[in-house]
Amino acid sequence: MPSLHPQLKDAMGEIAKEVHNELDGFIPLTGNPEDRLYEAMRYSALSGGKRLRPFLCISAANMFGVDPSRSRRVAAAIEMVHCYSLVHDDLPAMDNSDTRRGKPTVHKAFDEATAILAGDALLTYAFEVLSNNATHDDPHVRAQLVLGLARAIGGNGMVGGQMMDMLAQTTEFDIGQTTRLQRMKTGELIAFSCEAGAILGKATEQQRLALRKYAHDLGLAFQMIDDLLDVEGTPEEMGKPVRKDHAAKKATFVTILGPERTRAQAEMLAAQARRHLEIFESRAQLLRDVAQFVVERRS
Amino acid sequence: MPSLHPQLKDAMGEIAKEVHNELDGFIPLTGNPEDRLYEAMRYSALSGGKRLRPFLCISAANMFGVDPSRSRRVAAAIEMVHCYSLVHDDLPAMDNSDTRRGKPTVHKAFDEATAILAGDALLTYAFEVLSNNATHDDPHVRAQLVLGLARAIGGNGMVGGQMMDMLAQTTEFDIGQTTRLQRMKTGELIAFSCEAGAILGKATEQQRLALRKYAHDLGLAFQMIDDLLDVEGTPEEMGKPVRKDHAAKKATFVTILGPERTRAQAEMLAAQARRHLEIFESRAQLLRDVAQFVVERRS
Repeated sequence: MPSLHPQLKDAMGEIAKEVHNELDGFIPLTGNPEDRLYEAMRYSALSGGKRLRPFLCISAANMFGVDPSRSRRVAAAIEMVHCYSLVHDDLPAMDNSDTRRGKPTVHKAFDEATAILAGDALLTYAFEVLSNNATHDDPHVRAQLVLGLARAIGGNGMVGGQMMDMLAQTTEFDIGQTTRLQRMKTGELIAFSCEAGAILGKATEQQRLALRKYAHDLGLAFQMIDDLLDVEGTPEEMGKPVRKDHAAKKATFVTILGPERTRAQAEMLAAQARRHLEIFESRAQLLRDVAQFVVERRS
Repeated sequence: MPSLHPQLKDAMGEIAKEVHNELDGFIPLTGNPEDRLYEAMRYSALSGGKRLRPFLCISAANMFGVDPSRSRRVAAAIEMVHCYSLVHDDLPAMDNSDTRRGKPTVHKAFDEATAILAGDALLTYAFEVLSNNATHDDPHVRAQLVLGLARAIGGNGMVGGQMMDMLAQTTEFDIGQTTRLQRMKTGELIAFSCEAGAILGKATEQQRLALRKYAHDLGLAFQMIDDLLDVEGTPEEMGKPVRKDHAAKKATFVTILGPERTRAQAEMLAAQARRHLEIFESRAQLLRDVAQFVVERRS
C-alpha cells in the first residue's frame, strides 16, 4: 500500500494489536468440556484481519477524549460481532466458503455445529461486554450502546442484508436495491462503529450525525472496493476464494456499474465522507486518512 | 392435566395470549425483499408453546407491582431467545429435527440459511427490545436486564450447555456433569426469566436470590421431566420426535438415574423450589403452582 500514510499504518497496527489482546483476555479457555466452543471463538476472533471497525470506534472515541480502556472494550465487542457474522456467512448453507484470512473457515477447522454455536456465543458475548459496568459508569451510555448495536445488526441491518444477499442468487436486484442491501449488510455495523465512539464520548447530536454520515459513505465505498477486489484480486492477496459472487451471478456494484464507474463512485464517496468530518478539524485526521485507505487497499 | 390448578391454567393461558400478541406486534412484515427472514421469525415465535419463561417473568414481576406493559416486553424478549435456541438446535448440523410443536421445523419449512439467519435475528432483537426506553425508564434496569440475559445464554450458559450436549453424543458424562450441562442449557434462561421480574421490580437482594434459587430448582426439575417425557411420551403428545436422546445414546437423567429416581428427584426439587418462595407469602401462589405443573405435565 504505497500511498498509505505511515501515521495511519502505525495507528491501525497499534489498535489491531490492542484489540487482539482485549479479545484474547475476553475469551479464555477454562478446562471445562465445552472448551471446544471457546477454541472455535478464539480461532475466529484471534485470526487477524484489518480490524477496521475497532479502528473506527477507537479513533472516533479518541476525538472526544474517551478513556482507551473503555473504547477498547466496545471495539472488541464490535469485532466479536463482525467475526460472528463471518463464521455464520461462511457456513455450507450460506456462502459455503472453505477458507478465510488464508486459513480453513471455522466449520472446516471444527465442524458445522461448533461453528453455529461459536457464532451465537460471540454475538451474545458482545452484548455482555457492552452492558457490563466496566464499559461505562453511566448506564444510559451502556443501554445506548446495546440499542445501537442491536439495531445495526438485526433484521433491519446486517442480518436482513445477509438475507437479501442469499436471495440475490435467484433475484435480480437493481442499483437501488443493491445499495440498500450493502448498506444493511456491511454499512450499518461500520456506521455503528463510529457512532459508538460518539456515544462513549457523549458527543453532541450534530457531532454524532456527522460521524454517521461519514461512516455511511465510508461503508458504501468499502463495499464497492470489496466487490472490485472480488473481481480483480487473487486468492493469495485476499486470503479467501475470489470471484464467487461473479460465479453465483449475484448482482454487485461491479456487475451493475462496471469496474471503472465502481471505482470512480467509491472515490467520490470517500471524498464526501472526509468532508463530513470538517466540523472536527484536525482531530479527525486519522478518520480522514482511513477513508483514503479504504479505496486504495489491495485486500 | 387433571391436577393442574384451574387458576394457574387460566393465568398461563392469559399470559400465553398476551405474549403471542406482543411478539406479533414486534415482528411485522414490511413488504421488503428480506421479508422471508421475518416470515421465518414469525413462524418460529408465533407457533404456540407453553410460554413457560414468559409466565415466570410476568408472574415474578407482578409480585413487585411492575407495569404489565413492561414485563410483557421482557417476557417477549425472553421468548425470542428461547425460539432462537430451538431454531438453531433443530438444524441438521445440530439435533437434526424435522418437526417441532407438531409442525415442520424452520429449516424444513424454509431452508437452512433462512433458519440460521432467523435465529440470529431473534437473538439480536431480544437485546434491542430490552435496551429500548419503553422497557424501563431507568437505564440501569435496562443495562441489568441485558447483562443478565447475555450471561444466561452465552458460553457460560445456554450456548455452552448446547455445546456440551453435542459432545454428549461421543463423551460419557456422569451425573454431576449432566446436571451442570442441563443447568447451563436450560436452567440459566429459566432462572433469568424469574430474575428479570425482580430486576424490573427493583427487588431487594434477598428477594432476587430467593427467586434465583426457586428458578434453579424449577429448571432442573423441568429438565428431568423433559428427559422422562422423551422416554415415556408419544410424538403426538410432544409435537416432536421422541427417544432421540436414547437413540443417540446420550446420557440423560433417565439413563443415569432410571425413571423412578428421576421422577422422585424432580418432585423433591419442585418441593424445594416452592419452599424458596416462603418470604413472598401468598403473593407467590402462581409460582408455587407452576412448580407443581412442571412435574405433572404430560408434554
